[in-house]
Amino acid sequence: MTTLGDIGVAAAINIGSAFLFFLAFAILRLQPFNDRVYFPKWYLKGLRTDPVHGGVFVRKFVNLDWRAYLGFLNWMPEALRMPEPELIDHAGLDSVVYLRIYLLGLKIFVPIAFLAWIVLVPVNWTSTGLEGAKNITSSDIDKLSVSNVHSRSERFWGHIVMAYAFTFWVCYILLKEYEKVASMRLEFLATEKRRPDQFTVLVRNIPPDPDESVSELVEHFFMVNHPGHYLTHQVGFPGYFKNDNFYCCFKYAVSPLATVSIFMFLPVPLLIVNNNFLFSDEVIYDANTLAKLVKKKKKLQNWLVYYRNKLERTSKRPEMKTGFLGLWGKKVDAIDYHTTEIDKLSEEIASERKKVTDDPKSVMPAAFVSFKTRWVAAVCAQTQQTRNPTLWLTEWAPEPRDVYWRNLPIPYFSLSVRRLIMAVAFFFLTFFFMIPIAFVQTLASIEGIERTAPWLNPLVTVPFIKSFIQGFLPGIVLKLFLIFLPTILMIMSKFEGFGSISSLERRSASRYYLFNFVNIFLGNVLTGSAFQQLNSFVHQPANQYPITIGTAIPLKATFFITYIMVDGWASIAAEVLMLKPLIFYHLKNFFLVKTEKDREEAMDPGSIGFNTGEPRIQLYFLLGLVYAAVTPAVLPFIIIFFGLAYVVFRHQIINVYNQEYESGAQFWPDVHGRIVIALTVSQIVLMGLLTTKKAASSTPFLIVLPILTIWFYRYCKG
Amino acid sequence: MTTLGDIGVAAAINIGSAFLFFLAFAILRLQPFNDRVYFPKWYLKGLRTDPVHGGVFVRKFVNLDWRAYLGFLNWMPEALRMPEPELIDHAGLDSVVYLRIYLLGLKIFVPIAFLAWIVLVPVNWTSTGLEGAKNITSSDIDKLSVSNVHSRSERFWGHIVMAYAFTFWVCYILLKEYEKVASMRLEFLATEKRRPDQFTVLVRNIPPDPDESVSELVEHFFMVNHPGHYLTHQVGFPGYFKNDNFYCCFKYAVSPLATVSIFMFLPVPLLIVNNNFLFSDEVIYDANTLAKLVKKKKKLQNWLVYYRNKLERTSKRPEMKTGFLGLWGKKVDAIDYHTTEIDKLSEEIASERKKVTDDPKSVMPAAFVSFKTRWVAAVCAQTQQTRNPTLWLTEWAPEPRDVYWRNLPIPYFSLSVRRLIMAVAFFFLTFFFMIPIAFVQTLASIEGIERTAPWLNPLVTVPFIKSFIQGFLPGIVLKLFLIFLPTILMIMSKFEGFGSISSLERRSASRYYLFNFVNIFLGNVLTGSAFQQLNSFVHQPANQYPITIGTAIPLKATFFITYIMVDGWASIAAEVLMLKPLIFYHLKNFFLVKTEKDREEAMDPGSIGFNTGEPRIQLYFLLGLVYAAVTPAVLPFIIIFFGLAYVVFRHQIINVYNQEYESGAQFWPDVHGRIVIALTVSQIVLMGLLTTKKAASSTPFLIVLPILTIWFYRYCKG
Repeated sequence: MTTLGDIGVAAAINIGSAFLFFLAFAILRLQPFNDRVYFPKWYLKGLRTDPVHGGVFVRKFVNLDWRAYLGFLNWMPEALRMPEPELIDHAGLDSVVYLRIYLLGLKIFVPIAFLAWIVLVPVNWTSTGLEGAKNITSSDIDKLSVSNVHSRSERFWGHIVMAYAFTFWVCYILLKEYEKVASMRLEFLATEKRRPDQFTVLVRNIPPDPDESVSELVEHFFMVNHPGHYLTHQVGFPGYFKNDNFYCCFKYAVSPLATVSIFMFLPVPLLIVNNNFLFSDEVIYDANTLAKLVKKKKKLQNWLVYYRNKLERTSKRPEMKTGFLGLWGKKVDAIDYHTTEIDKLSEEIASERKKVTDDPKSVMPAAFVSFKTRWVAAVCAQTQQTRNPTLWLTEWAPEPRDVYWRNLPIPYFSLSVRRLIMAVAFFFLTFFFMIPIAFVQTLASIEGIERTAPWLNPLVTVPFIKSFIQGFLPGIVLKLFLIFLPTILMIMSKFEGFGSISSLERRSASRYYLFNFVNIFLGNVLTGSAFQQLNSFVHQPANQYPITIGTAIPLKATFFITYIMVDGWASIAAEVLMLKPLIFYHLKNFFLVKTEKDREEAMDPGSIGFNTGEPRIQLYFLLGLVYAAVTPAVLPFIIIFFGLAYVVFRHQIINVYNQEYESGAQFWPDVHGRIVIALTVSQIVLMGLLTTKKAASSTPFLIVLPILTIWFYRYCKG
Repeated sequence: MTTLGDIGVAAAINIGSAFLFFLAFAILRLQPFNDRVYFPKWYLKGLRTDPVHGGVFVRKFVNLDWRAYLGFLNWMPEALRMPEPELIDHAGLDSVVYLRIYLLGLKIFVPIAFLAWIVLVPVNWTSTGLEGAKNITSSDIDKLSVSNVHSRSERFWGHIVMAYAFTFWVCYILLKEYEKVASMRLEFLATEKRRPDQFTVLVRNIPPDPDESVSELVEHFFMVNHPGHYLTHQVGFPGYFKNDNFYCCFKYAVSPLATVSIFMFLPVPLLIVNNNFLFSDEVIYDANTLAKLVKKKKKLQNWLVYYRNKLERTSKRPEMKTGFLGLWGKKVDAIDYHTTEIDKLSEEIASERKKVTDDPKSVMPAAFVSFKTRWVAAVCAQTQQTRNPTLWLTEWAPEPRDVYWRNLPIPYFSLSVRRLIMAVAFFFLTFFFMIPIAFVQTLASIEGIERTAPWLNPLVTVPFIKSFIQGFLPGIVLKLFLIFLPTILMIMSKFEGFGSISSLERRSASRYYLFNFVNIFLGNVLTGSAFQQLNSFVHQPANQYPITIGTAIPLKATFFITYIMVDGWASIAAEVLMLKPLIFYHLKNFFLVKTEKDREEAMDPGSIGFNTGEPRIQLYFLLGLVYAAVTPAVLPFIIIFFGLAYVVFRHQIINVYNQEYESGAQFWPDVHGRIVIALTVSQIVLMGLLTTKKAASSTPFLIVLPILTIWFYRYCKG
């Protein structure tokens, strides 16, 4: 059993590493040559340029002002300073509401921890249930937990009353928060500048018509079905090719009634079409060759900029060799050479574009249709268009930058089959992931090492190393396993065919949450104590489930405390250091960057990463709620996580992360729902635990709680 | 164990009683004095009047034409003759689609029975698995079932292949039928005359406003939110009083744009407002006294008609006494007396109406809002109106006759609480109903009687009585228990606060289905063999459930066969006889009827009764699908049920049932979903059964089936 001392060692290690990360961050962020790593958000918004301190050359790279180093945690209050409305302007509603999840954690757990420590901790601590127990080596943490209360004790009424108090508090806060987020969303949508996607509907599964092209068909269909409201449309038929580069060109709907500028409705990769997108047709083409040509042109243009800069600096026309890598061949004037090459390419691009445009084969059955008013778009997006409910499927158009083009042309039936396949695949992924984790954890325990590698015995018996293995290793093992998971889940969501990045992330998040629940929560509760329990679990009667989990829960408190410290403290602190982007930026800067544009592209600001971040938070909600009535000692660790993470992510959102899309906090119902699930699980676990404690009269009182909680969920859902 | 002989006796009894019912029906329906009992639908439509054969007096009551009695089953082909489109005009789409459920049963089970009998029956019959078994007394039915196949036999592959074939066939038919019903519904809605409820939205939870009345509030709200589309509205605030009689008065929206006649939008009980409903305000009042006055007036008017008829017949002005029951008091001219009384009452009604109208206290926060186009109404019904999602709740207005007034003013929070209470109540109802059923069935078995009432032994051992007890009694016991259930469920649905009769019936139906599933299906499968199994069931591991049910299923085949004969054959045949309405009609006719209007009201045509009928059909789908691969001998009985019920109900719908509302086959998704549930259950049961037969290699093949079925369901749901 892990003792308080072991936890102390783990805490010291984690606090130490967090401190080191913060220190390194404080030093690195003040260096001008790291400016683009630690403040990319401001560069992307065009509000910051490379610092030029002038004078001494070294100042360009190293900050020599010693006063700047004094307040090395100053970024924390700075991060908290920006008010919420300004933050919405700066980073979008999604980011702000995402931060509110951390705040929600604090709002929920600070009062709960307070209550639990003044009521439950004395009740548990003054009991003597563990003293007489044989076979169980109890730690000090266990003395604070419900395990220390005698079976059949009247003291359990304290836990039951607290369970009620916790439930009502969580539901109250959830309800308030839901109202707040809903009103923020509505306000955001209402006050936002008129965005074209609010007037636009994505139409999928357009049926083939022998007489008309897709474009004509769409026009006629909506002219007839929404007369007087139809504005314009874009038939989208992205093909599949390597680089996710699609070529797109628009006809501008020259309607006197046009209230929407269709120009704005350009998907992100379309900057390649520059100033000539007002032509031909409203279609997106399968344009593999075209994309290659455009890429080549972009590269040449970059070189041209580089040579022009050189000319300005040296006032001498740069020369180059035309052969391989510029090493041999004819010497020519570089600027002239590139200008003519670019002209040639532009012509090629024009003809290739024409060729692709005239080819009807690449037409895919999807389109963006714009209406004159938001209201009609809303109606069209939410209603069935034809008798056959599998054709002319409409939904709100995602934001331009949010569109996941590759999935737009997938037909309905195929979508359905893909969902089935992924459901089965996810089941297997979740189920079979448990085996390696349990295996490695058994190896990484003291007993496991003694058994499998007896030659390590002298090392393992060193007290410090023993504490390290017990307090640190299980968390690390778990963490390593989970690094590759989000990528796999994201690929699965993409295969399922969602049409926008935001929905892909929401889907991945809910899968990740399920995975965490089964493998991290249940997996550790049950396999940690004995892997064999897992198998027996499947063969147990339904009424045994809560009892099995309830029995194991208090025993795993110390494991989860170390897990929280590793994953919740040290990792969060490491997040702020941005080690990977830092290294990559400097490597790129050294080897590849020639022009300003290249430097721009060398930045890797990253994003919130809803698909990984949110499920992680949810795990803490789950642990906090489950342990609130069982082992209140866990709560302070969770509160520190929420507080720390709130500050760190607020800083990151202000200074670093690039906003990839704006969904207007569409993810909130998911967040809300998962906290309710966590609450229900905590109630069931407590019920099981009290049953093993022979507090049988408690069951009727506790069974009311999950029913009320589920009712609360349904009430909120409407 | 029940033998083939027992089943023969039961079949003979049931076929005999069905035959008797048909014979009685054939004789009774031809008698002119029963005409209003057996053809009320035609009277209600005004297409039939009381038969006057003229001449002989006795002909008015008894049909003396002997030829009419010859083809006593002639009503059957007659019932089938009316083509579907005509039937839709005659009885509504709901009725026609309801009949299609029976047809669906035939479409599913005829080919399945064919396949099962040519493949599975030979496979089972030629096995010898039951010969060596000890302890089990097998009947001949069992020899046809999967029980007769040896454990670990390769023959089970036949059952697995058949399970696949059945699944694909059911899914195929379901998909076709869904498409058909959807297109029927759309066609019906499109070709229907413009019904006002298609332009109207029901608004609930209108928030109180200190400055405006509800009526003004509604008008301003929709004027602002749907400018140019708002037509008119009716604020509904029915109070609660005894007879569900509400008083209602409308202001006709004198709009030049009005495309809907608001006149048509009168709830059924409003015929009392006769020709003066074009006045005052668009409100419905709490009008208890008013309703009493109106009722009194109606009664007096009926008497007036009676005396006028008398005057016409006898050419002598009728006289009456004004005292108690007309037995003493002053003698007056009856017609004059009633005319003046009615005038007095009319005045009283007018002043009472004014009083109620001016009282703002009875205003309830609900209204009907009409729009100029269906499209806008659709939009309004499906969208959120305000920021607070619990206010201004909109939904499609039910048909006038479909509105359940009493529930309209229930606020959102209260609805939510009611739903919770009813969910808990339904759980207890379902759970505790099992105990009495099981108890009575144990008593009603031969062994039970021998144990509890040994003095009945000499009687019970008579072979015929023994067969009767075994073949007939269990079904009867079950049936008796279930007679009062639909009423209870309907009251529960009403308490839950649904706003239309159709949704009340749909809700009751789904509850009734659940009840049937747990108590009739599971209850009989498990308690029938041993009541103790039920308790052990709760304490079994999850993977034991299918095995427990799978083991018990083949043993209960004979019980369900008798159940089908009692409930499915004899009861259906009894339905056509209309015994209860027949008796009540003649009693009323004899004692109460004075005028034509009274006779009109003495008729009790009844209605389809979706809330009881549909769950009953679903039970047969469940039994059929479960036994298809296990005991194919059950299938012919089910096919006979579906065929017989189809003919009987088609006849009833054409000639008897009154259409209470028209929901446009909104119930189909429920029907579809429950058949899919039945299919899934059948697959799981087969899996459990084959596991006990040690055909372990079959599980992977069978587990694919429920997954595919659920996927199919989700695919259909979209």
